[in-house]
Amino acid sequence: MNRGMFISLEGPEGAGKTTIISMLMTELKLRGYQVLQTREPGGIEIAEKIRNVILDKSHTAMDPRTEALLYAAARRQHLVEKVDPALESGKIVLCDRFIDSSLAYQGHARGLGIDDVYSINQFAIGDQMPDLTIYFDIDPVIGLNRINQHDNREVNRLDLEDIQFHYKVREGYELLLKRFPDRMKKIDAADPLEVVFSKAKDLILSSLK
Amino acid sequence: MNRGMFISLEGPEGAGKTTIISMLMTELKLRGYQVLQTREPGGIEIAEKIRNVILDKSHTAMDPRTEALLYAAARRQHLVEKVDPALESGKIVLCDRFIDSSLAYQGHARGLGIDDVYSINQFAIGDQMPDLTIYFDIDPVIGLNRINQHDNREVNRLDLEDIQFHYKVREGYELLLKRFPDRMKKIDAADPLEVVFSKAKDLILSSLK
Repeated sequence: MNRGMFISLEGPEGAGKTTIISMLMTELKLRGYQVLQTREPGGIEIAEKIRNVILDKSHTAMDPRTEALLYAAARRQHLVEKVDPALESGKIVLCDRFIDSSLAYQGHARGLGIDDVYSINQFAIGDQMPDLTIYFDIDPVIGLNRINQHDNREVNRLDLEDIQFHYKVREGYELLLKRFPDRMKKIDAADPLEVVFSKAKDLILSSLK
Repeated sequence: MNRGMFISLEGPEGAGKTTIISMLMTELKLRGYQVLQTREPGGIEIAEKIRNVILDKSHTAMDPRTEALLYAAARRQHLVEKVDPALESGKIVLCDRFIDSSLAYQGHARGLGIDDVYSINQFAIGDQMPDLTIYFDIDPVIGLNRINQHDNREVNRLDLEDIQFHYKVREGYELLLKRFPDRMKKIDAADPLEVVFSKAKDLILSSLK
C-alpha cells in the first residue's frame, strides 16, 4: 500500500481555516479518498496532558522555551500515535496547524528564532515534514474583525496590542514561504470562501496526481 | 556580586551520589559558602507537572523522543526559576543530575544519539552549562548490589536485563568525559565513601579558587 499524503493547513484565526478544512474533508471523501482530519493534540492522551500543562492559566511563569519544547513533545506524540499510522495505511491526513505554527508564532513572533525552534521540531518529527502546507493568508485586522463579528463585540485595547503580535506572525509565515517554496503554498484568505476553498482543493488535487 | 558556581553531579544509582552531595553541602556551608542543593524538577510547579506526565505509569505508549523533549522542558523551567536566580545571587548550586543524564541515558543508552539530545538541551539551557560536573563512576554490578543490599533482596532476572542498559549508560558517560574534558571530572565511586567524598570536595574547592 502506498504511503498517504500529509497536508498541514496554516494561518491565523479568522482566515476561515476550520470551515475550509471541513469542506476539503467532504470533497476528498466524495472523490473516494480515505481522509483523516486532525489537529494537535488530537485526542492523544499524552499529548492532551502536555497541552493541559501548556494551557494551565496558573502557569504564568512558564518560560517561552519551556513552552516551545512542550509543543514539540506533544507534536511528536500526536505524530507517532495518530498521523503516522494513518499515512502508513494510505490515508490523506489534513492537519490543522503543524510545525509552521511553532516556527511563525514562537520562532519569529516570540523571538526565539526560527532556526532554533526548527531544530527542536526536527528532533520531534524527523523526516515527517508535511508533503504540502497550505497557508491561508489574511491581514490580521480583517481576521480579527471576522472573529469579532462572530463574537458580536467591539475591538478593544487588548485586541489592538495583539494586532502587533499577529503582524509579526504573518511576517514569520512570509519568511517560511520563502524558505520552503516547494512545500508551502499561500492562498489569499480575504477572497470569498468559495474562492479560497476552490484554490485549496486545486492545490491538493494537483499534488495527488 | 559575583555569579555563583554551577556544579552538577552525575552517576548511576548505587554510586553513593546522594550521600556525598549531602556531605558536600555540609562541608561547603561550614566553609561559609552559600549553597543551594537541588535536583530536577526541584519543587518547581511547572516542572513537577511535566515530570508527572513523564512518570505516569499509564503512559506505556510514550515515545522516547517525546520523553526527551519533556525532560528538556522540565530542565528549562527548573533552570530559569531556581538555578539561575541562585547563581545570580552568588550561590554555589549543587544539582543532582543535569544535562549529562539525558545525554548518557537517552542520547546513548536509548539510542536517540548524543548529538541530537544535546541539541534540544542546548535550546533548553542556552549557555548555562555547569561550571563543573563530577561523575561518580561505578561498575553497574557493584552499584546494583549496593542497592540490593539496602533493599535486602536477591538480584532477579529483570535486574540482570537492566545491567546491559546500565553498561550502555556507563559507556555514554565515558563518551561525555572525552567530549567535555575541562568540565567533567570522573571519580571512582567504588572507593570507600570517605575517599570519594574527599576527592569530590577537593575538585570543588580547587575550582572555587
